[in-house]
Amino acid sequence: MTQASICTIGDEILIGQIVDTNSSHISRALNSLGIKVTRMLSIGDDQNEIISSLTKELQDNEIVITTGGLGPTKDDITKAALGKLSLSQHNKTDEKQLEIIHRILSARGLDVLDINLAQASVPDTCEVIPNRMGTAPVMVFRFPEERFGHKATLYSLPGVPYEAIAALKDVLNDIKSHNEISDIFHKTIMTFGIAESALSKMIEEWENALPEDMHLAYLPNPLTGVRLRLSIYGGIKEEEEARIEAEFAKIKPVLGTYLYSYKDDTLESCIGELMKASGKTLSAAESCTGGTIAALMTSVPGSSEYFLGSVTSYANSVKTSVLGVPEEIIRKYGAVSSECVAAMAEGVRKLTGSDYSVATSGIAGPGGGSEEKPVGLVWIATSSKEGTETYRMNFKGDRKRNIERFAANALNFLRVKLVNELKH
Amino acid sequence: MTQASICTIGDEILIGQIVDTNSSHISRALNSLGIKVTRMLSIGDDQNEIISSLTKELQDNEIVITTGGLGPTKDDITKAALGKLSLSQHNKTDEKQLEIIHRILSARGLDVLDINLAQASVPDTCEVIPNRMGTAPVMVFRFPEERFGHKATLYSLPGVPYEAIAALKDVLNDIKSHNEISDIFHKTIMTFGIAESALSKMIEEWENALPEDMHLAYLPNPLTGVRLRLSIYGGIKEEEEARIEAEFAKIKPVLGTYLYSYKDDTLESCIGELMKASGKTLSAAESCTGGTIAALMTSVPGSSEYFLGSVTSYANSVKTSVLGVPEEIIRKYGAVSSECVAAMAEGVRKLTGSDYSVATSGIAGPGGGSEEKPVGLVWIATSSKEGTETYRMNFKGDRKRNIERFAANALNFLRVKLVNELKH
Repeated sequence: MTQASICTIGDEILIGQIVDTNSSHISRALNSLGIKVTRMLSIGDDQNEIISSLTKELQDNEIVITTGGLGPTKDDITKAALGKLSLSQHNKTDEKQLEIIHRILSARGLDVLDINLAQASVPDTCEVIPNRMGTAPVMVFRFPEERFGHKATLYSLPGVPYEAIAALKDVLNDIKSHNEISDIFHKTIMTFGIAESALSKMIEEWENALPEDMHLAYLPNPLTGVRLRLSIYGGIKEEEEARIEAEFAKIKPVLGTYLYSYKDDTLESCIGELMKASGKTLSAAESCTGGTIAALMTSVPGSSEYFLGSVTSYANSVKTSVLGVPEEIIRKYGAVSSECVAAMAEGVRKLTGSDYSVATSGIAGPGGGSEEKPVGLVWIATSSKEGTETYRMNFKGDRKRNIERFAANALNFLRVKLVNELKH
Repeated sequence: MTQASICTIGDEILIGQIVDTNSSHISRALNSLGIKVTRMLSIGDDQNEIISSLTKELQDNEIVITTGGLGPTKDDITKAALGKLSLSQHNKTDEKQLEIIHRILSARGLDVLDINLAQASVPDTCEVIPNRMGTAPVMVFRFPEERFGHKATLYSLPGVPYEAIAALKDVLNDIKSHNEISDIFHKTIMTFGIAESALSKMIEEWENALPEDMHLAYLPNPLTGVRLRLSIYGGIKEEEEARIEAEFAKIKPVLGTYLYSYKDDTLESCIGELMKASGKTLSAAESCTGGTIAALMTSVPGSSEYFLGSVTSYANSVKTSVLGVPEEIIRKYGAVSSECVAAMAEGVRKLTGSDYSVATSGIAGPGGGSEEKPVGLVWIATSSKEGTETYRMNFKGDRKRNIERFAANALNFLRVKLVNELKH
């Protein structure tokens, strides 16, 4: 099995200022290719440390992927280290990257400085994969067998997460074309609204009857639900994937509306597909979630087709004047109530003219809770011409967590309503 | 300077299932004690790998902190490795931890199984710091100078983040009482609206004139701007911090309104402080940012004091009917225009009765762009009774990045307007 190591370069990670998310992203991608990650490493902007650490990783692994150490003010350390490691005597300038640097900086209205241009200068021992999202190119160093006892390749990626993630696609293609990789086949289904332990009890019989070569993993996430993944090592792609699908088909009726996707979908993209297919439109009224539902809905490309808009009614005056919630409801039941959230959902549907709407009102904390209405309490409403439903939920988290969970559960109630009403 | 290494043990991190947040937390704590973290490492549940990796880390560092590998189903691997590494022949049972295990499990209504009790059994070469939050104790292994060429201590902490964080306090106290630690002093300032390269040119003279014992770091982040950090190793806290502040004071006039905070603030918390201090109120009208500005503003605890609400006017019909943007403006200039975004900002201010407002209209992509109005273009408006200003910006990112940058820059224009208008 091909082995890989992932290394982040940069003092900012060592001093704890940044949490390294690149490594887990890269690791998941390598795993899904059937490559075993043996180690992750973070080191500082220090030339000797970079050389000695990467030498060890190249001795132990066929593939080493580094991120970071390539910003304009300090890329000289990393590049000099990679140059020494690869016995480079000179730098070369990559014309494609140079062009990208000019394009990116001028699009941002920035002057192109010498330190920017220097980013296109790389050791002449590497191949360059241009980085279209940023100024630092990806460098690929291929080491012959005699150097580390086996063929080894070092990929140096930028550290900015979206640049690293974008560049990773090209890197994975390069890895696939240069290595014989034993296949691994995964398929994933997504559930929401059921806890991992309850889910495992629900599908226990099915799980016990799975073929021996199939491996089931539970991957829980409070914002996207519990993901179930079936994997098989080796075999013929079409056949193995069909076998996995046949197994998943068996639990579909058991899972009911807990199941929301056969892909790595999010709740918001799933809602988007339902809306597009039906030609219906959507709006939102948010109090405690403060715009998070709208931000999630509009994170989906093409959402302008069905998402008309939303009102964040943080102040009660906005609830009454913009959404038309009767003042009496707020006086009698409070803003965090079934009555208020229902009026918000109906109000925003009327205001925007949408077919569907979702609304939230709750207490995200840290302040504002009471014994009767504690921090973590949320009321959610979904509304359409078929009717308006409200739901009460309770969470125990900090402000950020609570807001995220309120929003995710609101999207899920909306999704279930859409599934139930649109299939007729 | 005392050096430390941080190592996570566990397959779940190597396969990318979990993002390691313990290491950055521990690293920040060690840094604030003046201990230099030279390396972070993640390895799998493999006895030989654990022994060889920790041996190297103990050779290179006085302090090694591990997290993880201590769960009830697999702690035998880590403990056997630590036993071998410390030349232990026998295990011992820690009575205090045994008591805690009984207490925790019975409080959760769970049976106390043999694999739970086994967690209190540790190599007889270690000292135990009881873990009050969980079942796995902290193990402390002290190695004499002759073993690795210097006195070295290995701390093995549980992997569950809140257990690791709770246990860290005791570990830090143990470190302080066993090591002579030279202090490190940091101060940070935050800038926005200027690129790292331009900033470094702008403050070049100042940077070159910094005292030799002061180290400057540029920490760029597209959403919070470029952070500048000055550090000094050793000295008397008050004196060194005053010296750093004196240096920062020198560039304050150079940086002007690019500088927004002397702490680790965000733009939204900085705006929140300005609003609270002035007693003014705020609203937002969002098209392309789709709720992200509202979500950022309301992520700040206490934001209900000044943030009245927002309208996400994704559809043009919502721009006209809710925000009162004249149809003619959209027909004549388009929704992505200075005229439209100004009308949106003024409209939402009128609708909510707020003192200030911010609005965005742009093209986040991937679709919807044209030659004249490409993907990445955004118009931003800020409005108050003093007037309405509009700004045009261009970015090159994917949809998510574009939305985040549109929102961050909108917040920054709002901040600058607040600073300029509220100081009078």
